[in-house]
Amino acid sequence: MKDKFLKYIQNLQNQITSKLEEVDGVAKFREDNWERPEGGGGRTRVIENGNVFEKGGVNISAVHGKLPDSMQKLFNVGEADFFACGLSLVIHPKNPMVPTVHANWRYFEMYDNSSPSGKLVGAWFGGGQDVTPYYLFEEDAKHFHQTCKTACDKHNLQFYPKYKKQCDAYFWNAHRNEARGLGGLFFDYCKADEQMSMEDWYNFVTEVGNSFLEAYVPIVEKRKNLEYTAAQRMWQEIRRGRYVEFNLVHDKGTLFGLKTNGRIESILMSLPPNVQWVYDHHPEVGSEEEKLIKVLESPVDWI
Amino acid sequence: MKDKFLKYIQNLQNQITSKLEEVDGVAKFREDNWERPEGGGGRTRVIENGNVFEKGGVNISAVHGKLPDSMQKLFNVGEADFFACGLSLVIHPKNPMVPTVHANWRYFEMYDNSSPSGKLVGAWFGGGQDVTPYYLFEEDAKHFHQTCKTACDKHNLQFYPKYKKQCDAYFWNAHRNEARGLGGLFFDYCKADEQMSMEDWYNFVTEVGNSFLEAYVPIVEKRKNLEYTAAQRMWQEIRRGRYVEFNLVHDKGTLFGLKTNGRIESILMSLPPNVQWVYDHHPEVGSEEEKLIKVLESPVDWI
Repeated sequence: MKDKFLKYIQNLQNQITSKLEEVDGVAKFREDNWERPEGGGGRTRVIENGNVFEKGGVNISAVHGKLPDSMQKLFNVGEADFFACGLSLVIHPKNPMVPTVHANWRYFEMYDNSSPSGKLVGAWFGGGQDVTPYYLFEEDAKHFHQTCKTACDKHNLQFYPKYKKQCDAYFWNAHRNEARGLGGLFFDYCKADEQMSMEDWYNFVTEVGNSFLEAYVPIVEKRKNLEYTAAQRMWQEIRRGRYVEFNLVHDKGTLFGLKTNGRIESILMSLPPNVQWVYDHHPEVGSEEEKLIKVLESPVDWI
Repeated sequence: MKDKFLKYIQNLQNQITSKLEEVDGVAKFREDNWERPEGGGGRTRVIENGNVFEKGGVNISAVHGKLPDSMQKLFNVGEADFFACGLSLVIHPKNPMVPTVHANWRYFEMYDNSSPSGKLVGAWFGGGQDVTPYYLFEEDAKHFHQTCKTACDKHNLQFYPKYKKQCDAYFWNAHRNEARGLGGLFFDYCKADEQMSMEDWYNFVTEVGNSFLEAYVPIVEKRKNLEYTAAQRMWQEIRRGRYVEFNLVHDKGTLFGLKTNGRIESILMSLPPNVQWVYDHHPEVGSEEEKLIKVLESPVDWI
């Protein structure tokens, strides 16, 4: 399974980066291959100062070795070996009418390192995708969520409502009492059980991975040439501040990476390029900006 | 003591904000008075878009009530009542040749709430001041540290070396393996003992508080009219990103405020106005920017 999924995310990285380069029309992804001293490494691809994409990363990594102390605590286990691989992406477009998007699909294995064979003692998938606009176009929110739902429904009709709810709960900027964005899907600890074999989970997770470009690119194409003002750009930069706050204060993946000696530049590629913090900023009553804020106050059923 | 120290920080806030307005020459502090539902409140003063100061806050607060769960854990105590007051300031100048500065002076009391009298069971001072330049002027670093040392030396010759070292340790951006800035002073849990009464600590802490303008303003005056390029401004915005990373990932005060329902806008006034994140940015070899980075790699004895 691990070889199969690793091959899948390698191909998906190629597919996503070449499609985004095509959409941008100007900028190309820069590739950095890195190695993890304790085992494994990754292939980071970053795009900057494009025509459409101001900054973004589409990164894969496959790491293995001794399970770090912090993960032993997280999983409530003792010493063990592990393997983890995944694709993570965050795209920050230049035009404030185009939403920021985030996605991640990952696979994890844990082994008993007290036995000579290193017996597999656990394996699961996780991941999801979610969208963060600066201006609300309801049809875009519906399109993103419908694409997520269509992918889920092929596998289990319970998945979309369940993982949509988990996404709203996870990307909650608690100290601001608002959502980071409009959500999408979030799932974790997807393990083999009576209903779903690991092969079934692989089919589900790759179905979601394959739906990403369909969920996001039509929105980019529709909005990328819309005109915008300096004030709208400023609003985007202020809202990007909230993205930074979520990622650095609440996001388990980011904090986990920062505290376990991950490759800092690959982790923090998620941070937006130009950001503002204005003291006690509030949008005007009745404005488009206020409309977005209202929608972030409590999760909406977009379907 | 609590009334005396509260009066002190109220006066100090007036003194600092009027001096900084004078230095800026254009912008005025905006004042927001706020109340804490559980008891107490604060007076937040924020300056924005000045001639010299791009964004800054000089805030006081005095809060009291039941000790929150998170503080019970921190202090390793059970249920108790508390009182806390302090002044916190962060100033982000526009010109990249002028350093950012941070300072905080605070007083804390804890009471046994099982007795009808609410007996005082603990009281201590804490605080410090530290400077974060974007370009290194060694004479400015020396001036700041010398002012800190002069204030300390009037009370105890061990204080400057001890609190300078604690400052370097505290403002360490661990995930970047570099200091946030050039340090200064950091002290906490300053309690009455055989050598220092609470009155002695009051005299020490207010001596440091009174030294702040002398430590910072001459540096501002010397650098505020220096010319700078767009590239130097960009460097400042990138380095401000590290300031954000420290405050949101590592700073106990910020995280504590965010997780215990503090007044968010007063806490996050510390975040810089315009910030950039550029993937894997490195200054040119031999440049002034690289010179700063080198100095942040390990603490320097500036005296």
